[in-house]
Amino acid sequence: MTVYLVGAGPGDPGLITARGLELIRSCDILVHDRLVADELVAEASEDTRVISRDGLDQEAVNELLVNYGRAGFDVVRLKGGDPFVFGRGGEEALALRDAGIEIEIVPGISSIAAVPAAAGIPITHRGISDRVTIASCHSADGSDAEYARLAAIGGTLILFMGLGRVERVVDGLLAAGLPPETPAAAVSRGTLPDQEVVRAPLEHLAAATIGLAGPALLVIGDVAALELLQPANLPTFALTATTR
Amino acid sequence: MTVYLVGAGPGDPGLITARGLELIRSCDILVHDRLVADELVAEASEDTRVISRDGLDQEAVNELLVNYGRAGFDVVRLKGGDPFVFGRGGEEALALRDAGIEIEIVPGISSIAAVPAAAGIPITHRGISDRVTIASCHSADGSDAEYARLAAIGGTLILFMGLGRVERVVDGLLAAGLPPETPAAAVSRGTLPDQEVVRAPLEHLAAATIGLAGPALLVIGDVAALELLQPANLPTFALTATTR
Repeated sequence: MTVYLVGAGPGDPGLITARGLELIRSCDILVHDRLVADELVAEASEDTRVISRDGLDQEAVNELLVNYGRAGFDVVRLKGGDPFVFGRGGEEALALRDAGIEIEIVPGISSIAAVPAAAGIPITHRGISDRVTIASCHSADGSDAEYARLAAIGGTLILFMGLGRVERVVDGLLAAGLPPETPAAAVSRGTLPDQEVVRAPLEHLAAATIGLAGPALLVIGDVAALELLQPANLPTFALTATTR
Repeated sequence: MTVYLVGAGPGDPGLITARGLELIRSCDILVHDRLVADELVAEASEDTRVISRDGLDQEAVNELLVNYGRAGFDVVRLKGGDPFVFGRGGEEALALRDAGIEIEIVPGISSIAAVPAAAGIPITHRGISDRVTIASCHSADGSDAEYARLAAIGGTLILFMGLGRVERVVDGLLAAGLPPETPAAAVSRGTLPDQEVVRAPLEHLAAATIGLAGPALLVIGDVAALELLQPANLPTFALTATTR
């Protein structure tokens, strides 16, 4: 009789929380995003009704959750990343709250730190950066005044975006005063086996991303010059020992 | 023969990743921060050597990890939150990398989104905020120019800090032009059973935090006016079904 808003993490199925995995295994209804790992959906029991939200608009998803919650089922709503970091978990939570349905929030590992880490980049590092600003592509791809704010804030910038926008955003940040030699990186399909990473000074970042699969996460700032991993150390996660 | 840098999450033991829990259960050596949940340390097998890093400086921790890694053990270095979000995981990773020791990074749930979520606040919300800036207390408690940048950036501000600094930081942000009525919240011991939340307009935030246990995470911005949870819905996580 609870709807659980559960974050699935950034891609690798081993990066779901212990609590989230437990709930997937025990729920009556599992409503999942299309991009959630198949391995996680497969953890649901045979008795669980599994529903992809693919093709449903947000209002229809809210209604589905409210209806199943009202009918007395334990529902897991499995969302990519963290439900409240550029997801739309807040809208689902408010719809459920307004309908008087009990909810539990189980956060997920967000891409914002995990994807740079999987590429060997810490988003903060002592003596290098103790501030991080995260912007969606919509928010980052803005007016000159927006670029000026993003260029001035200091520390690490993390931008989520389609690769088609990289050139425009980089041009905007350079025009706003970020030095052309600022270290930068783009990570495509972070934490997944086919993850790709390119690193380049900001002025060459757009050229370096040509041919990458989108969407990508951009890391801009001095931390992007750090390399914590040897090439052979790129993470390989799996759910093996935790599956039934 | 690998050193695993594992994030333990924000406090609640159920919020470790499935992969992290699996590694704690199978490692030879477990080196943990003092503030990591006892329940997670207790997941180590009887054959595991468990070492608290309490009382060791960062250099001694690095040396310990290098020595055990070199000796051929599987070592889990369990850190609060996420190792690379205001942790010092980057320093440990670089020491290991320079010593030629294989590492794997297993990110953790960071407080930055999970703690506001546990208080019913999404750090982003469609139509309200699609930008988040996170600053440590050191970085936030700065010069007038720093306050001006933080006040101008827009979206959600997340500040980690000791409660003794709240008044100074709030004064700095108000002086830099953030409106006094900006919604704000402070969350103490987020995701733990004794979590406390206070909400107040920015101008009254410092007064509202009197008596809270520190450290606290501050959320400043329009999302802090959202309330996703009914009081009875405050999360209660546990590791029950995932323990052996």
